[in-house]
Amino acid sequence: MSSAVATRGPVRVVGTGLLGASVGLGLATRGVDVVLHDPSRTALALARDVGAGRPAHPDDDPPTLVVVAAPPDVTAQVVRDELAAHPGAVVTDVASVKGVVLDELRAWGADLTRFVGSHPMAGRERSGPSAAVPDLFVGRPWVVVGSGESTPEAVLAVRALAVDLGAVPVTMDAVSHDAAVAVVSHVPQVAASLVAARLRTTPPEALGLAGQGLRDVTRLAASDPALWTSILAGNAGAVRDVLRALRGDLDTVIDALDQIDAAVTWDDIELGALATVAQVIADGNTGVARVPGKHGGAQRTYEVVTVLVPDSPGELARLLTDVGHAGVNLEDLQLEHSAGRPVGMAAISVLPGRSEHLEAELTARGWRLVS
Amino acid sequence: MSSAVATRGPVRVVGTGLLGASVGLGLATRGVDVVLHDPSRTALALARDVGAGRPAHPDDDPPTLVVVAAPPDVTAQVVRDELAAHPGAVVTDVASVKGVVLDELRAWGADLTRFVGSHPMAGRERSGPSAAVPDLFVGRPWVVVGSGESTPEAVLAVRALAVDLGAVPVTMDAVSHDAAVAVVSHVPQVAASLVAARLRTTPPEALGLAGQGLRDVTRLAASDPALWTSILAGNAGAVRDVLRALRGDLDTVIDALDQIDAAVTWDDIELGALATVAQVIADGNTGVARVPGKHGGAQRTYEVVTVLVPDSPGELARLLTDVGHAGVNLEDLQLEHSAGRPVGMAAISVLPGRSEHLEAELTARGWRLVS
Repeated sequence: MSSAVATRGPVRVVGTGLLGASVGLGLATRGVDVVLHDPSRTALALARDVGAGRPAHPDDDPPTLVVVAAPPDVTAQVVRDELAAHPGAVVTDVASVKGVVLDELRAWGADLTRFVGSHPMAGRERSGPSAAVPDLFVGRPWVVVGSGESTPEAVLAVRALAVDLGAVPVTMDAVSHDAAVAVVSHVPQVAASLVAARLRTTPPEALGLAGQGLRDVTRLAASDPALWTSILAGNAGAVRDVLRALRGDLDTVIDALDQIDAAVTWDDIELGALATVAQVIADGNTGVARVPGKHGGAQRTYEVVTVLVPDSPGELARLLTDVGHAGVNLEDLQLEHSAGRPVGMAAISVLPGRSEHLEAELTARGWRLVS
Repeated sequence: MSSAVATRGPVRVVGTGLLGASVGLGLATRGVDVVLHDPSRTALALARDVGAGRPAHPDDDPPTLVVVAAPPDVTAQVVRDELAAHPGAVVTDVASVKGVVLDELRAWGADLTRFVGSHPMAGRERSGPSAAVPDLFVGRPWVVVGSGESTPEAVLAVRALAVDLGAVPVTMDAVSHDAAVAVVSHVPQVAASLVAARLRTTPPEALGLAGQGLRDVTRLAASDPALWTSILAGNAGAVRDVLRALRGDLDTVIDALDQIDAAVTWDDIELGALATVAQVIADGNTGVARVPGKHGGAQRTYEVVTVLVPDSPGELARLLTDVGHAGVNLEDLQLEHSAGRPVGMAAISVLPGRSEHLEAELTARGWRLVS
């Protein structure tokens, strides 16, 4: 495969965890000479073994690009050291917070003309170099954050890195980036953790009533505390601002529920309290409708066809084969399971106007529909 | 199909929205004589047309069981009227709040020996009688809440109703039920709405960075404001109590982020502030691990194999067919889409120890793995 990065010289990857090793592996797969460095000799050896590149050696040609893939809390100092050690190289990092890194580099007087921040919006449930995969970034946004002093060539080199790895480069400044990830990533993480934390003392029989809604809201709560402490601390101001606004809404809901709870009968409830609760749900409607769906742009309202699926190997494949035969494109798929039952439900999202045809086709093929 | 309910006489369903019409349709499918009533003649006619039963007539035999499927805020008065009008009948309701209904009935001196509350944990994205399906309750928990004075026969009749509709009856008292749904359903709804409400003013380029995490956390935020106002108002005390506890944790996080934001460099951050943030994420880990997964019991830690899937009809089916051929049972499936890219990712959850074999099989069949 051709590579804009490959034409310029070795790429040095510092930090060979999941992201660094995946960058190395993705570039190496495309024929780039990748040299690796990690303070952990084990991580370095593992990254080499998965094909992410070769350990750095004093006789190497100087790198033209350095990718720092260290934890957020040490990223700035590693970037500073790499800028100093490789005066001909463009240096980028992949930390999920950008302002704090730039602020530290500026305070230390680092050469910001050769520094461009990155934030590839990609990850996996596993971590470490052995979890590395070359296609981790394919199709994902890759935020490119100039330092304000970055040369156009430095920005271009980092955009080329993103493109070479199959990602979609998105240019933003550090403040906009940090505000964006606060609201679309960091606050949802905190919310998921807070809701899940309430389940620590919930009786098992109550947990047995849980449905897909609870599982969706709390899935992120399984995230790694050390990593997320570092991320949230690195974006503390922006996250706090969104959480404060959220707390304002939460206080309003709590006060309204308090008024409602104090009423003796439904007729005693003040209408204002009910309207307050309704407004919070309506505001959520407005917000969620703006989240991009599968094909970009505002989320479409799909029609959903729900089908009972026996819980045995091959049944879901058979169902999806029948969906394909019906000539209907599947836009999304959610599996819903019932605790202790040998049957699941598959909720198939299709474009508006396609559900009736699909329902008829699936019924004709013997499937039992729920919705 | 045989039916415990069918042997005893007509079942009267009052309120023919999604739940009432689905109860009627499910019973009628099993040969039960179902008579329908709804204050809306349109809803009644639609329910009849989908096969949920026949409109009630003055010459009907008296019902042995009445199912009240009215909105939560009018459920108690409909139950009271039905208990009075049908002195030989057991009456149940399907409202998603239980204490407030029972309290009102008790205050009015209703005959609680013949009343048993229900809460089938089932629903659909569409509403109204035309969305009714006979299998709506199949495999779902159906909470049965005695009044404290309910006769054993009355409780048995309602459990039989649940079983006839394919549901799994779960006995709870009203207070336990309301506390349970507050934490597993109502608070997650509020949290999803609050997070989504923050997105109303988020710039489109920031929303473009959204991933599956945000979509998961905010999916419930699309819920109907009128219905949810009624539900939250009907469980105001229990929901408020959980939200207050959640707000306590939220305040702790905000305070810690405030301290961290005030620090000039990473080294100035007080360790206590970082530990506080880490504890909230860790508490979320503990809570989410208790949510039952597909097969009941505590959630298993699945291994996830992520595969790149071209966005064309039949590709996902072909993938799942190959998973089946590999002899690996699919425990869960999540589709991850990339805005504007013609490729998606399918995250296949399998039992621990099965992912390596699956990865090898899928690679051999030409699939590109991401994880």
